[in-house]
Amino acid sequence: MSSPIPVAVLGATGSVGQRFISLLDNHPWFKVVALAASDRSAGQKYSQATRWILDTPMPDYAKDMIIVLASVEAVQAKIVFSALHSDVAKELEPQFAKAGVAVCSNASSFRQAEDVPLLLPEVNANHIHLVKEQRKIRNWSGCIITNPNCTSTGLTVALKALDDAFGVKKVFAVSLQALSGAGYPGVSSLDIMDNIIPNVGNGGEEEKVETEPRKMLGKLNQNKIDFADIKFSAHTNRVAVIDGHTVCASVEFSSPPADIQSVLQILSNYQAPAEARELPSAPKPVIHLREEADRPQPRLDRLTGKGMSTVVGRVRKDSLFDIKFVVLSHNTIRGAAGGSIYNAELLVNEGLL
Amino acid sequence: MSSPIPVAVLGATGSVGQRFISLLDNHPWFKVVALAASDRSAGQKYSQATRWILDTPMPDYAKDMIIVLASVEAVQAKIVFSALHSDVAKELEPQFAKAGVAVCSNASSFRQAEDVPLLLPEVNANHIHLVKEQRKIRNWSGCIITNPNCTSTGLTVALKALDDAFGVKKVFAVSLQALSGAGYPGVSSLDIMDNIIPNVGNGGEEEKVETEPRKMLGKLNQNKIDFADIKFSAHTNRVAVIDGHTVCASVEFSSPPADIQSVLQILSNYQAPAEARELPSAPKPVIHLREEADRPQPRLDRLTGKGMSTVVGRVRKDSLFDIKFVVLSHNTIRGAAGGSIYNAELLVNEGLL
Amino acid sequence: MSSPIPVAVLGATGSVGQRFISLLDNHPWFKVVALAASDRSAGQKYSQATRWILDTPMPDYAKDMIIVLASVEAVQAKIVFSALHSDVAKELEPQFAKAGVAVCSNASSFRQAEDVPLLLPEVNANHIHLVKEQRKIRNWSGCIITNPNCTSTGLTVALKALDDAFGVKKVFAVSLQALSGAGYPGVSSLDIMDNIIPNVGNGGEEEKVETEPRKMLGKLNQNKIDFADIKFSAHTNRVAVIDGHTVCASVEFSSPPADIQSVLQILSNYQAPAEARELPSAPKPVIHLREEADRPQPRLDRLTGKGMSTVVGRVRKDSLFDIKFVVLSHNTIRGAAGGSIYNAELLVNEGLL
Amino acid sequence: MSSPIPVAVLGATGSVGQRFISLLDNHPWFKVVALAASDRSAGQKYSQATRWILDTPMPDYAKDMIIVLASVEAVQAKIVFSALHSDVAKELEPQFAKAGVAVCSNASSFRQAEDVPLLLPEVNANHIHLVKEQRKIRNWSGCIITNPNCTSTGLTVALKALDDAFGVKKVFAVSLQALSGAGYPGVSSLDIMDNIIPNVGNGGEEEKVETEPRKMLGKLNQNKIDFADIKFSAHTNRVAVIDGHTVCASVEFSSPPADIQSVLQILSNYQAPAEARELPSAPKPVIHLREEADRPQPRLDRLTGKGMSTVVGRVRKDSLFDIKFVVLSHNTIRGAAGGSIYNAELLVNEGLL
Repeated sequence: MSSPIPVAVLGATGSVGQRFISLLDNHPWFKVVALAASDRSAGQKYSQATRWILDTPMPDYAKDMIIVLASVEAVQAKIVFSALHSDVAKELEPQFAKAGVAVCSNASSFRQAEDVPLLLPEVNANHIHLVKEQRKIRNWSGCIITNPNCTSTGLTVALKALDDAFGVKKVFAVSLQALSGAGYPGVSSLDIMDNIIPNVGNGGEEEKVETEPRKMLGKLNQNKIDFADIKFSAHTNRVAVIDGHTVCASVEFSSPPADIQSVLQILSNYQAPAEARELPSAPKPVIHLREEADRPQPRLDRLTGKGMSTVVGRVRKDSLFDIKFVVLSHNTIRGAAGGSIYNAELLVNEGLL
Repeated sequence: MSSPIPVAVLGATGSVGQRFISLLDNHPWFKVVALAASDRSAGQKYSQATRWILDTPMPDYAKDMIIVLASVEAVQAKIVFSALHSDVAKELEPQFAKAGVAVCSNASSFRQAEDVPLLLPEVNANHIHLVKEQRKIRNWSGCIITNPNCTSTGLTVALKALDDAFGVKKVFAVSLQALSGAGYPGVSSLDIMDNIIPNVGNGGEEEKVETEPRKMLGKLNQNKIDFADIKFSAHTNRVAVIDGHTVCASVEFSSPPADIQSVLQILSNYQAPAEARELPSAPKPVIHLREEADRPQPRLDRLTGKGMSTVVGRVRKDSLFDIKFVVLSHNTIRGAAGGSIYNAELLVNEGLL
Repeated sequence: MSSPIPVAVLGATGSVGQRFISLLDNHPWFKVVALAASDRSAGQKYSQATRWILDTPMPDYAKDMIIVLASVEAVQAKIVFSALHSDVAKELEPQFAKAGVAVCSNASSFRQAEDVPLLLPEVNANHIHLVKEQRKIRNWSGCIITNPNCTSTGLTVALKALDDAFGVKKVFAVSLQALSGAGYPGVSSLDIMDNIIPNVGNGGEEEKVETEPRKMLGKLNQNKIDFADIKFSAHTNRVAVIDGHTVCASVEFSSPPADIQSVLQILSNYQAPAEARELPSAPKPVIHLREEADRPQPRLDRLTGKGMSTVVGRVRKDSLFDIKFVVLSHNTIRGAAGGSIYNAELLVNEGLL
Repeated sequence: MSSPIPVAVLGATGSVGQRFISLLDNHPWFKVVALAASDRSAGQKYSQATRWILDTPMPDYAKDMIIVLASVEAVQAKIVFSALHSDVAKELEPQFAKAGVAVCSNASSFRQAEDVPLLLPEVNANHIHLVKEQRKIRNWSGCIITNPNCTSTGLTVALKALDDAFGVKKVFAVSLQALSGAGYPGVSSLDIMDNIIPNVGNGGEEEKVETEPRKMLGKLNQNKIDFADIKFSAHTNRVAVIDGHTVCASVEFSSPPADIQSVLQILSNYQAPAEARELPSAPKPVIHLREEADRPQPRLDRLTGKGMSTVVGRVRKDSLFDIKFVVLSHNTIRGAAGGSIYNAELLVNEGLL
């Protein structure tokens, strides 16, 4: 790269915003030129306006930056990473796209729009080309591309490998989700100590897990996505874990494998599509397969591949469907900020910026 | 009752043993006459030999009792409650049964023996009559009766109500199990803080959950149990909760209900069989149905009905099977010591002591 | 008591308000006739307006009560228990006192007022007579009486016993405080999991611990309190405990005891003043002395004496002062709602209502 | 360095052993040539014999190393890092020293021996020269050098800076210690969830905190250490934190500073002795001073300076002594394995290997 691409973070003070700022530190292609937030924080130094909650220190580059208002006028960048709440995102992201900016969004507002790619580059990199249709339809010079809900993320990566090989028909999924997924301050300590909460986001989470993977595992067909014909049932739970979403999954195939060994090979050999394989944020490996009887575990495995890898373990026969397994993904890295950055890298690499 | 029935606790110093001692304090029918343990503790005062881990105080009656060796010779009682490890139980429990003692066991050693009742009185009280066959075959004057694995317990109670009404065919179950289920010292704090462990007991737990409910939901038919024709798939997880096992379940019926409302009625109206309904430890209610979007929760709901009730919530349509729900049961009360005591009460009430 | 005294709870929906409602269930002298809160909740059923966070169920009597506005007009009671925030309390409590109501307050607003008793009945029951002066000066027919900050509570009880015997001169105190002390939602789970916070309330807590015990250990002298001549140094910390504040204390005496045995006797023999000894909420025992090397512990010991007892342990020689020890007190029972109710009982018993 | 110095880890499978192996990965001076443990593990591959509990992955170099027996015969190295239990260390470490090996020990066995340096290089680097006397007296060609107890570590670093400037006379110290300090499996989850334990190691910990800083803050005087004339009082507590020991301290000076500002300057300007300043493991900075009202916090600050820095905060006036503050140190990095490695680097640098 000759000169770095100027990028900005919208919603920079929140928990996902902090991850963006942390992961963009020393990025080989991108340079953060603006940190944007609501008018409550705008005008203040980032280090003063922000209650930093990550256990890695705030990057030096961000400390003295003056927060600007999250608006098209105040933010000058070619890419904006959006950590906005979905109601704000709904209004603001199209303004940026119209103004020629590529919006890489972690918000759910446009994930289900027909012309908006919902992307995990290691799964469906080619869906990025939907932005051409999007630009045509909406008459935008910029675009909006989205990454899925954090609970769908790891599950979809594992299912992609399995679907390619055996054809996935049905998926039963129960999540044990980390606290950071609820933002900050998020879950009260009195609600989660010595406890679990058998619901996340009042049910909306389960719908997302039952819908989003079908779009990502679908096929790009003449400027639209044909959703994969897979049925999902999801239960979502909040547990006392800081980072890392775990999902217990049982899967039924159309062409079941002869044995578990074949499943293990398929999972550990899975590779991202060629165009997504060598990007700066590409997970290495895409899937880390663990063979111990009690892994993956969030505290020990969430940082595999710098938090970008999907970790799968306990692959075994299922007595109702074909196989069952456990999948773990770092919810604020692969499942949020890291995922958006990986999407942006793909956009650049495909010449679509 | 004219005079109390003398009972003993085997394995009195461990975590389940402590629950027995706590729950038997002021029991209307039973009087604890012996506390038994291994030769490491035998001969010592109970209060000196025991690291008491419950948050209710050690009952006064137990404090100065001298622990005796867990042996037929040293323990004089009509009923023994067994909190022994399964390998010790396997050898010792038959000796007591042969010597005329009724063994109410929390150990897994004999749960699957054909002539041994596996009992939840609110579910299958009539299975108690299997002890007649057991006595005949084994030439025992005593008997062994067992209660199921703690994770199967609440799930089986809920399934019983549903099976009676709609016929249960398939069950997916994912557990979030409490730490006390692993005994003391059990799970290391370094293994569970900021973490979950996606396996319990190296897989044995999942087999139990897939097998035990089929026996309890089966029919007593000419001195043997016909297992229920239900297929289970189970994932078991350990979470950072002190007491209370939560299970997320999806269920397929042979005669599905027209709507969720019918399911709610069936669950909240469920009653124990008549002979198990008015016993001192009978849960009141058997099933407590919660209608909030985020209940049951272990910390808030595990003591419902003094820890004997099964708490069900989040009953809703399932996109793969018919319905899904969350069920909670106190693992060391209903799922262990309280369950054994309830079994003993049934035995007495049926005139089988 | 012929007929019960009508009482109300102000701030009924919050965490301390919930404790009041729970502890007043079946109180032998008091009958709750009104639950009051801000206009956000007023007009709703209590069970609908409240997110109940205790692990004991909401008392039946409260469920269908309609919440009224916390105002003199809307609340008809002889005693009001105040769980109001201190800024609201500052304005509202005098209005009730003026209107003839006895305000038993957990708020800090009037604790340091010269004519307001700061009471722990087992420590300074006679300070209650300060209300006569208060009524004279302020021309009130009602009154305000307060209980101390929850961290001061257990410490002051232990110091009272020691001060009577050996004369306390200096106290070094470091607290490990529970999450419920911060109210609900209070401390974010992300702030306290795998963590401690070495400050509570931004320093105000430490000042309270350094000041309040001096008033309570002081003497009532001609209608005013002479503060005890004791110097305190306090560090306050928040830890991942739900209920129960622990304090590590080192104490210097003016007349040091000959040995630790004398200190143990003084602590375990301590009795409340006669007038406070047989009240319904009187702690039994006042001080529970534990002799194990690792007690008191909040989870195991906080409910000693129904949460009203002060638990002391690890009494040993101090290398800088005379002795050191650990003291535990239930922060929302003895240290908040239970304390206010005990104060109200004393007021009634002294004929000062 | 021309060629790397061969080193070994004794007690390689335990929690401190794992930290040694992790921190020695890619060390610029040292090359691990042997991993040693008891005969239970000897002969196995390291990756098979070890339950790895760190959240960073096991270094590749260690995975396939065959564990050897911890004995002089089996271990060929110039330096051994000892993570042995103190009873084993007592016997084994002198054998290595006699055989010409430099033992850098984390065990407590020889910390108080007159001729054994107890070292924190940033505090008392010159005490390393005590090994000359040790070699003379004991007729050893190797040596034993030790690092202090993990709770003393951070406290002593902070006190060193203060002692140089103002003369420390008295110290009150209350610790909130992490779970990893107890090793693995260490503390049971049932003992620490929703709880604190007001004692560590049955009192031995408090004696260490009251003694070890006096040796390190003492002066090397004609081949022996004159202990510093400082009086300590310590309370030690275990809390639900994975890594990072926090200490609340109050300090009395012989020459008190005029104001807090002077104390802050002294702390933040403190530098290690010249000979310890540029070593590979030297903490940068030695003391990180935080000015927020609620820092240091273990989860957020324990990795400051790669876990080698001492973090100090909340420096303020004390009402009994002169100042009080909070100090945090990573107990298994600075307080254990990292400390031993830093000691070894000093030994090499001083030409004493």
